[in-house]
Amino acid sequence: MTDQINIGIIGAGRIGKLHAQNLAFLVPGANVIAISDIYVEAAQQCAKHCHIPKACKNHQEILENKDIEAIFICSPTDTHAQIICEAAEAGKHIFCEKPIDFDLERIDKTLNTVEQAGVKLQLGFNRRFDPSFKQARDNIKQGKIGTPHIVRITSRDPQPPPAEYIKVSGGLFLDMAIHDFDMCRYLTGAEVTEIYATGAALIDPEIGALGDIDTAITTIKCQNGAFCTIDNSRKSVYGYDQRIEIFGSEGCIIVGNKTPRAGTIYTAENVTQDLPYHFFLERYQEAYIAEAQAFIRCIIDDTEPLATGIDGKIAVEIGLAAKQSLQEHKPVLLS
Amino acid sequence: MTDQINIGIIGAGRIGKLHAQNLAFLVPGANVIAISDIYVEAAQQCAKHCHIPKACKNHQEILENKDIEAIFICSPTDTHAQIICEAAEAGKHIFCEKPIDFDLERIDKTLNTVEQAGVKLQLGFNRRFDPSFKQARDNIKQGKIGTPHIVRITSRDPQPPPAEYIKVSGGLFLDMAIHDFDMCRYLTGAEVTEIYATGAALIDPEIGALGDIDTAITTIKCQNGAFCTIDNSRKSVYGYDQRIEIFGSEGCIIVGNKTPRAGTIYTAENVTQDLPYHFFLERYQEAYIAEAQAFIRCIIDDTEPLATGIDGKIAVEIGLAAKQSLQEHKPVLLS
Amino acid sequence: MTDQINIGIIGAGRIGKLHAQNLAFLVPGANVIAISDIYVEAAQQCAKHCHIPKACKNHQEILENKDIEAIFICSPTDTHAQIICEAAEAGKHIFCEKPIDFDLERIDKTLNTVEQAGVKLQLGFNRRFDPSFKQARDNIKQGKIGTPHIVRITSRDPQPPPAEYIKVSGGLFLDMAIHDFDMCRYLTGAEVTEIYATGAALIDPEIGALGDIDTAITTIKCQNGAFCTIDNSRKSVYGYDQRIEIFGSEGCIIVGNKTPRAGTIYTAENVTQDLPYHFFLERYQEAYIAEAQAFIRCIIDDTEPLATGIDGKIAVEIGLAAKQSLQEHKPVLLS
Amino acid sequence: MTDQINIGIIGAGRIGKLHAQNLAFLVPGANVIAISDIYVEAAQQCAKHCHIPKACKNHQEILENKDIEAIFICSPTDTHAQIICEAAEAGKHIFCEKPIDFDLERIDKTLNTVEQAGVKLQLGFNRRFDPSFKQARDNIKQGKIGTPHIVRITSRDPQPPPAEYIKVSGGLFLDMAIHDFDMCRYLTGAEVTEIYATGAALIDPEIGALGDIDTAITTIKCQNGAFCTIDNSRKSVYGYDQRIEIFGSEGCIIVGNKTPRAGTIYTAENVTQDLPYHFFLERYQEAYIAEAQAFIRCIIDDTEPLATGIDGKIAVEIGLAAKQSLQEHKPVLLS
Repeated sequence: MTDQINIGIIGAGRIGKLHAQNLAFLVPGANVIAISDIYVEAAQQCAKHCHIPKACKNHQEILENKDIEAIFICSPTDTHAQIICEAAEAGKHIFCEKPIDFDLERIDKTLNTVEQAGVKLQLGFNRRFDPSFKQARDNIKQGKIGTPHIVRITSRDPQPPPAEYIKVSGGLFLDMAIHDFDMCRYLTGAEVTEIYATGAALIDPEIGALGDIDTAITTIKCQNGAFCTIDNSRKSVYGYDQRIEIFGSEGCIIVGNKTPRAGTIYTAENVTQDLPYHFFLERYQEAYIAEAQAFIRCIIDDTEPLATGIDGKIAVEIGLAAKQSLQEHKPVLLS
Repeated sequence: MTDQINIGIIGAGRIGKLHAQNLAFLVPGANVIAISDIYVEAAQQCAKHCHIPKACKNHQEILENKDIEAIFICSPTDTHAQIICEAAEAGKHIFCEKPIDFDLERIDKTLNTVEQAGVKLQLGFNRRFDPSFKQARDNIKQGKIGTPHIVRITSRDPQPPPAEYIKVSGGLFLDMAIHDFDMCRYLTGAEVTEIYATGAALIDPEIGALGDIDTAITTIKCQNGAFCTIDNSRKSVYGYDQRIEIFGSEGCIIVGNKTPRAGTIYTAENVTQDLPYHFFLERYQEAYIAEAQAFIRCIIDDTEPLATGIDGKIAVEIGLAAKQSLQEHKPVLLS
Repeated sequence: MTDQINIGIIGAGRIGKLHAQNLAFLVPGANVIAISDIYVEAAQQCAKHCHIPKACKNHQEILENKDIEAIFICSPTDTHAQIICEAAEAGKHIFCEKPIDFDLERIDKTLNTVEQAGVKLQLGFNRRFDPSFKQARDNIKQGKIGTPHIVRITSRDPQPPPAEYIKVSGGLFLDMAIHDFDMCRYLTGAEVTEIYATGAALIDPEIGALGDIDTAITTIKCQNGAFCTIDNSRKSVYGYDQRIEIFGSEGCIIVGNKTPRAGTIYTAENVTQDLPYHFFLERYQEAYIAEAQAFIRCIIDDTEPLATGIDGKIAVEIGLAAKQSLQEHKPVLLS
Repeated sequence: MTDQINIGIIGAGRIGKLHAQNLAFLVPGANVIAISDIYVEAAQQCAKHCHIPKACKNHQEILENKDIEAIFICSPTDTHAQIICEAAEAGKHIFCEKPIDFDLERIDKTLNTVEQAGVKLQLGFNRRFDPSFKQARDNIKQGKIGTPHIVRITSRDPQPPPAEYIKVSGGLFLDMAIHDFDMCRYLTGAEVTEIYATGAALIDPEIGALGDIDTAITTIKCQNGAFCTIDNSRKSVYGYDQRIEIFGSEGCIIVGNKTPRAGTIYTAENVTQDLPYHFFLERYQEAYIAEAQAFIRCIIDDTEPLATGIDGKIAVEIGLAAKQSLQEHKPVLLS
């Protein structure tokens, strides 16, 4: 039995660098031996910083490298499905950032290829690995709050992405709320049966002009009877706002925001505290490390990943249904 | 100019006794001189405890008493509209518990009578007078959080009322969520234009058998573009759960629960705190006093009540639309 | 067995009015039938407001009234010992504001008179009746934090009293910290064996000119081995700061401040909350009611008061030892 | 101007490994090229994990390596003074864990040698670099709470060290409270003029048998008039308890504990939260990184370290005075 996995990383942008650094320094058993990026300088710089022996331009080099057992796909969304298939066919285990794709048929074909190849595929639903959310799920599973009745998810970004990004993002539901849809399934352990979504461009008219929204309220019915309500905003001036609440027949779990500093100042005027973490990389720092650790672990131990390809597919299905509900202005059933 | 108002109370049940006690002991300018109840012993007992000179059986006696300038209607809901009309015609100012009625036509006729009589009518939307919620509204009005985008209201009772009550309650939306509908209008200062409601009897099948629900998620669109999402449950095992959150372009106000005691215990196992107040009478103790003070104040100063008959009517309209949305399983527009 | 106690109140100043109002409106079993004040108008006004049948100038009238079974002494400190003795000799049960006196010999004589008379004497250590502190004590007694090792008391007033008051107050230790000394005994259930006090006039040089201090740190050793550290300030700009912490072998109890409102505002700049209650009357509102209820209860049930004359004496002993420690600049043993 | 510093680490025990890992992975500009430990396997293992090119047994090799510009001294306390002198004479900048030594004369000679050599010496007062405490100090310096009057420090370990460690630790004041003494100076910006310390072995009689204590209360007077009170315990069952509070003429700063997870569970019985971080390595993780970053920074920028040799000396002086106060049972003046 091996206790070290040779890894190749595809994509040395923001999220690729993050994974490279975590894998190199903070994930026991991970041995990154190559990184690729079409901007080869980005790959080289990251390789230097993270003691990665090899940097290259073409991701094919990574896939052809016989020493590499697992890859991290950190390239743009529209390359995910293609690279997953290539990697699976090359016999590599795959960690891929969400989403797999926006097209359900294409996702099915991709997952089919993975299954045929018998490799592992873990999706980058990082929030599942956040210690607070994971503890919430564990407590629910242990029955500490009885049967879940209501899930409340607040998920607000500190500021909208640039218009260029909005255009290719798939829209708020597939780009942003997709994490919350997954969180609903993760926490309740139940499938979504119906969705009603509403929203508007309240923050930035340009987002509206692009056919997208920046503010949304989504109501979900789950197979186990629970309801879930999600509110999203692209602009929360006080930072990254990520809270969940699960209310059940025997109690309630509330997960609040975390703050970088623990101080409170009392003056004659008021009592002030620290703002929440401002950015998702800070807020989910531990989660990114934990998801990489879990991926390495599931290869070494030959177990099922904790966020599978099917999880990735279902989140897209829910996102597409939310889009349809918004457009048709009525609740939409999921099969 | 007078600085003392002679008051009659109609109804000496739970809420009548509460108002009697507050008016007698804690509301400057209020002089309760009579109380009636069809169970005259209840009126007598309350009169004794609160130093009220006169107790009687028939509310007509109250309305015929020339010394009485204002009345508190604390009798069952189905008597509200009738007594409001009688009191208005007798020239009394009126404080009435919500709702006025479940029938919109009857409400219109009642409000018309009040307007003709030129008396004041204040509805018992006590939460408007809660110091925390009032501060939230003041801060919104002062622009501290910019333009409101999302209102979140969590409103959960500690336990369901008895089946007898459920039957005549008008259902969850008109009995319980009506307070939250009013809170949405109160906080945003905007009218409701559309509502989508969903729910189920997850707690008690008997409630379902009576055609009512005990768990609900409601999504509201407001005229100013803001969205509101409300979650209701009839049974929150940890106490009366009353929280609101208003998220805007420049910030967010969160009002949490209050606890009777301020202690925290740290042990090797966990950190425990006090449960929230268990019952609405404890949680809104200050609000009940403040609404009575405000009513007396608006009579003495001849100003508009802070919760009017129109507020009462609109809350019922929203409640009826919510019911319709639940039945028809689609969003409903309000005129 | 009686279930109603006829009460006379001596003194209609701030604290007298508070007790009158609580007894009249909020303490079942209390029947206030007379109130006296050397400013008879004060007594009359209070009587009117609280439905007290009789107001008089001379406290002797109260003591001679055969119908009165118990009295509340709310007159200036220098009259306490004298009135306690007179009341005891008249066979009245006695509630007296702290302190009994600053002179230990005089206290002994007073307590002796009370004992001879066989009447009950309860001292106004209101904090013992605060729900949060009482819960802390109950939890300690139940062993929830094991053996107490360290008690931390923070006790800060919103602003210094006027110089006139400082002059007759007995100084910070006997006027202000006396409550904290009592709290130490109340929480640990142990006697004080040694005290070291230090302090200075950091806030107001006038207080220093009067020979008093406005800032103090006191360290106490208790008979059971526990240590207690108390910090006092006469001026906390953010309100009345009253916190305690008891650390033991198996855990820790922390009682924080309470705030009037439950809202938090998040903006791009900061997160702000409500200030603590500003004044002792607001902060200890419930405690004042509870201590009066307990006093009436202990008369009706013929039980021991929860804050006795001996408690009052010991608090003064500790206060005098603290003064001595400050002056002699060394720890002082208590017998 | 260089932007990379070649570093040698002396000692590969717990704290040496921590610094090695931080320097290797998380401190830009730090280039660790060698590590030594008398257990050479420990050095080798750490070198492998952290990509350090060279591991050796003898620290002299580090000091003789001409490429090394700065060293981290992570060896046992009794070697600190000696190695500091050797390193200074070899022209290396020095980061040394606290304390320098327990002997003031020896400290003076050591600091003298450092000064002669003109190298930088930073002491390992990691808490100065904690984001929450640093923010507190910044706010104090900016006058946000006016003039400091009272500093409260709670500093409790999760469990006592083994007897072997206690024997050579210098006792609670020099081993544990020394951090708190430094924090008092750091926060107030003022020197200590007087100290009164009391304490006992309440947790473990074996600690008492070794002549040490496990529970202590210390009262400090500062040159600027402020008072400081510190409570220490060797055993806090709920985790590492590290809180500070600075109360001033215009406000108060309170720094609480941090918890690993942000969840709260509400049930019918109680409300439970996460325990604080259990261990100093977790609680001060960010501080350890920040102090190493600051050290590298001060070499590159040629500025004064933020925790100097003099700071190290004064903390020992205060610790020795606390010991004396405990033994002599009276307050002790510092020169």
